[in-house]
Amino acid sequence: MLYLIGLGLNGDLTREGVTTVQKCKVYLELYTSFLTVPLKDLERVLQKDITVLTREDIEETQQFLKEAKTTDVALLVVGDPLVATTHAEIIIEARKRAITTKVIHNSSVYSAVAETGLQIYKFGKAITIPFSQEGFQPTSFYEILQKNRIIGAHTLVLLDIQHDQKRYMNPKEAMEILHRLGFQEEVICVSRLGCTDQRIVYGEIENLLKLDKQYWGSPPHCLVIPSSLHFKEEEFLEQFRLKVIK
Amino acid sequence: MLYLIGLGLNGDLTREGVTTVQKCKVYLELYTSFLTVPLKDLERVLQKDITVLTREDIEETQQFLKEAKTTDVALLVVGDPLVATTHAEIIIEARKRAITTKVIHNSSVYSAVAETGLQIYKFGKAITIPFSQEGFQPTSFYEILQKNRIIGAHTLVLLDIQHDQKRYMNPKEAMEILHRLGFQEEVICVSRLGCTDQRIVYGEIENLLKLDKQYWGSPPHCLVIPSSLHFKEEEFLEQFRLKVIK
Repeated sequence: MLYLIGLGLNGDLTREGVTTVQKCKVYLELYTSFLTVPLKDLERVLQKDITVLTREDIEETQQFLKEAKTTDVALLVVGDPLVATTHAEIIIEARKRAITTKVIHNSSVYSAVAETGLQIYKFGKAITIPFSQEGFQPTSFYEILQKNRIIGAHTLVLLDIQHDQKRYMNPKEAMEILHRLGFQEEVICVSRLGCTDQRIVYGEIENLLKLDKQYWGSPPHCLVIPSSLHFKEEEFLEQFRLKVIK
Repeated sequence: MLYLIGLGLNGDLTREGVTTVQKCKVYLELYTSFLTVPLKDLERVLQKDITVLTREDIEETQQFLKEAKTTDVALLVVGDPLVATTHAEIIIEARKRAITTKVIHNSSVYSAVAETGLQIYKFGKAITIPFSQEGFQPTSFYEILQKNRIIGAHTLVLLDIQHDQKRYMNPKEAMEILHRLGFQEEVICVSRLGCTDQRIVYGEIENLLKLDKQYWGSPPHCLVIPSSLHFKEEEFLEQFRLKVIK
């Protein structure tokens, strides 16, 4: 049997997650996301050895799936497991091989982003800003952002991850790309959501762009582009407004 | 201090949730949602007495907030705490009273609905279908659904809850309202998401409407209206297609 177990935003597993892991051989998928706790701490808490899988292990070799045919296997996933397309595909593949699967859900940026004070039901499609490739910068995400704004929807903006190069897009880089495409309004920067060092900063993109890259600290980060705000959303957001720009 | 602690979809708290509850006076908010586990079971697992608050307790009297000024108070919330607007307002109110707050996140329908195989980043604004009031049926939710479809976004459809009357909208009632407004396409019915008796059924609304109200079982339920599907989404969804209509 294959268990896909969510680590949530900060590696705080649910009770069912913790007890399920005990009977399993344990793998960790890490190329779609960023682990906010040290792997050693996770191993200590769970009292299990954890094998980190590469993209090739997950999408091609799939040795963990072969093992799940005859034994209990846990695949740990940052956040809520099926949010990444890759993991939905693992479920399809397991079905084809007649392997039973179970998902143990956990917290995700898709609901926890409500910490900004924006109402979750007003979010439109999420977008990801990708790193430029050899001078080419895709812009389809910007069209989705504009369509969201037309229908009064907020936009969750995920930032590119190139895990094999340990490269995680910084909010400054993301805002530079948005600004270059013509975006001039307000942005919310959300850092380490759900962690003890969570930070939310809100302001005009022109102001936030003046800040040094280092200001934004460690990943993971995301942005939120607010659309029209309810006065309750405004009241909540105001506490995060960047006060001083030198 | 006030802790807002997510119960997730099925009352499976995170480790931090469980340990935090131990030092707190414990309340439960239940009028915005439906608890999928018996309260007695939750009390047994947490080894704490839990006081259920009414809407008036939460939004008006707010005795629990007064207590949080001098002692540790936990407010348990189904799902992820800040998804309901009410809880964001509690945070604002706590700030005004200089009460420190902390949110302990957990799973939510907003990410777990990926169990349908639909990609989360393609969901647009969520809507709620309200019960009719004295012959009046609001329709603004239907306009949002149509706008989502124009931009190729899936729609999560939440169903009305009138907790004081123990009245939870059934998928059949919700589909009847949609059908009356002119909706004729495919619908996904999601029942008891994240629970051991989770069920997902997919098909033409005309077909699903032929089923008896009882067919859909116990709440909570939600619907998903898919927009244009990627072939991977189609492949996943197909497993849920209602096969036999008598």
